[in-house]
Amino acid sequence: MSVTAAKGFTAAGIAAGIKESGSPDLALVVNQGPRLAAAGVFTANRVKAAPVLWSQQVLRGGQVSAVVLNSGGANACTGPEGFQDTHATAEKAAEALGHSAAEIAVASTGLIGVRLPMGKLLTGIEKAAVELSPHGGEKAAIAIKTTDTVHKTAVAQGEGWTVGGMAKGAGMLAPGLATMLVVLTTDADVDAAGLDDALRAATRTTFDRVDSDGCMSTNDTVLLLASGACGITPQQTEFAEAVRTVCDDLARQLIGDAEGASKDIRIEVVGAATEDDAVEVGRSIARNNLLKCAIHGEDPNWGRVLSAIGTTSAAFDPDKLGVAINGVWVCKNGSVGEDRDLVDMRYREVRITADLAEGSETAVIWANDLTADYVHENSAYSS
Amino acid sequence: MSVTAAKGFTAAGIAAGIKESGSPDLALVVNQGPRLAAAGVFTANRVKAAPVLWSQQVLRGGQVSAVVLNSGGANACTGPEGFQDTHATAEKAAEALGHSAAEIAVASTGLIGVRLPMGKLLTGIEKAAVELSPHGGEKAAIAIKTTDTVHKTAVAQGEGWTVGGMAKGAGMLAPGLATMLVVLTTDADVDAAGLDDALRAATRTTFDRVDSDGCMSTNDTVLLLASGACGITPQQTEFAEAVRTVCDDLARQLIGDAEGASKDIRIEVVGAATEDDAVEVGRSIARNNLLKCAIHGEDPNWGRVLSAIGTTSAAFDPDKLGVAINGVWVCKNGSVGEDRDLVDMRYREVRITADLAEGSETAVIWANDLTADYVHENSAYSS
Repeated sequence: MSVTAAKGFTAAGIAAGIKESGSPDLALVVNQGPRLAAAGVFTANRVKAAPVLWSQQVLRGGQVSAVVLNSGGANACTGPEGFQDTHATAEKAAEALGHSAAEIAVASTGLIGVRLPMGKLLTGIEKAAVELSPHGGEKAAIAIKTTDTVHKTAVAQGEGWTVGGMAKGAGMLAPGLATMLVVLTTDADVDAAGLDDALRAATRTTFDRVDSDGCMSTNDTVLLLASGACGITPQQTEFAEAVRTVCDDLARQLIGDAEGASKDIRIEVVGAATEDDAVEVGRSIARNNLLKCAIHGEDPNWGRVLSAIGTTSAAFDPDKLGVAINGVWVCKNGSVGEDRDLVDMRYREVRITADLAEGSETAVIWANDLTADYVHENSAYSS
Repeated sequence: MSVTAAKGFTAAGIAAGIKESGSPDLALVVNQGPRLAAAGVFTANRVKAAPVLWSQQVLRGGQVSAVVLNSGGANACTGPEGFQDTHATAEKAAEALGHSAAEIAVASTGLIGVRLPMGKLLTGIEKAAVELSPHGGEKAAIAIKTTDTVHKTAVAQGEGWTVGGMAKGAGMLAPGLATMLVVLTTDADVDAAGLDDALRAATRTTFDRVDSDGCMSTNDTVLLLASGACGITPQQTEFAEAVRTVCDDLARQLIGDAEGASKDIRIEVVGAATEDDAVEVGRSIARNNLLKCAIHGEDPNWGRVLSAIGTTSAAFDPDKLGVAINGVWVCKNGSVGEDRDLVDMRYREVRITADLAEGSETAVIWANDLTADYVHENSAYSS
């Protein structure tokens, strides 16, 4: 279903030859209107890839008629020449589709610091334009994979309207915003401001709370495009909830397919004085390599949770902290709690609850364990 | 040589049975005066182990007559009972040595969240007191090892005076301050304030700039004890430099023996607007798991350096950043620089230089690569 679940969109995914493997590497998503409203959220990394700089400029107009996405190269840290490559990509898509380049967003993913093979990319755009179809969402989702083992799509239905989307991302996955590319589409009749509100609210508690490996990408991009093709304008809260549902689903799929991971770790911080405190503590726990190793070894080593909490600026009293792993309160009042042998960690999902005992705010951060496979995948070759 | 290189100190290291393996696990360092001046620097982790809380209290008086150190258990997150255990440790040492407990520092290292076997520990103190010797420094250094594969000692000589020391630490090694215990001794006649100045200045640019695995311990302790036994008061700058030399030597030994590491990474940030910027950027690079994996794979993946710089608040222009790996400027002006194939990464030490092109401040952070052995060592058992 993916990005073509909503009416008014066509998509394609092809092999343009950017990847040496010959796997699909170029996707095109086209909004056929009548509306061309769009919103976007991009990486908070201050080193931004050329396609991010380009698409941020495009989004300022609030209209996107098409998105060109490629895997096989991030086009990040490629200087003015890299930016010209992105510009040429948009121009070629504009020519092939009869659109304006100023309304064409571009997203790239792959190795940083290498120019894209522009001859193959531009020829690929012509080929993809010919293959555009209202059933092309699946192929587009496949073409944006890098080290992803599966393609990721999600859909939420309103009354008469739909929000669908696709995502890629498996490493360098700590969106502040993740190398995470997401395109969401809807046939609801929502203007750019409504899309922006819904998208920012959704990403704040979904993609922004995924922290697979603590590494923030230069290319993270989440786009939401509305065609208005169903002619219905939903209640904003209802629409925002649908967007959040799709983002949450895709975010969980990202964590579930993270490089080398054997566990998905749901870290819930409760009893925080503020939501910011809860997020800071959750992220600190999520990024603790020793804890991530312990979880991999199915070892309920709660001391590593406390050592991570202790590095934050959140409000807490060390003697009141509590930690539960898979529901067993192994740490109470900052000290030894229930028997750690009661903790069953055989399953892929591991739930850690950290109670700061300071207030009633909470946050959930999703992370992965740290495995020898992660090390192997990220040391064996440039990716 | 170790802590008994300086005159006026005796030490012992024995097996008290705290470790199930039967390896040495208890050390005693005694200052025989005439001076008992001391200074200490402790973990910045807000969750502090009982011995840290105790020793901070002792150090307030500026006098330390002895230090009891144990491996085999961190006595962290053990509640009021854990603090009582530390108190009882100091009392037993006071009794055995004929000192006051209020002048006895305690340091522990090992698993967090487990009570120490106090019977064995107290009996061990009696045994260690009998074995105290002016040649006991080596044995003391051996008794504080946990996952360390070698014991670490260092010595610097002034004119007629000496600074010596021992350290342990192999994991949870990101001192802000490192599970790192360090005891330094000197026979120079320096008061507590002079020791404190020298120690803080030294740790700020040595232990505080080691970041093996991004994980800050609950137990980090660095103590500097002066006996005054040589009767010489050195120039403060000369003394401070000797302390810094010993700290720097021990800090490098910690990185060289970090859990599972195959590379020691020297990250030098240059061209920074402020020293704080340089340290923030250096630490962000040091903590980037993807880069750490790339270094393990001997892959000069400089894009991961830029993505790490981009997450900081330091002053820089993405289009002016430069990165050299082992002297080859693979990134210039934020884009592709010299041929990455020129980089030779076969040796254990890897040098990364990041040029922020904003000023003249610099900082050096030492880190390690991320390896399957690190994952194995930290997932295979609670440590």
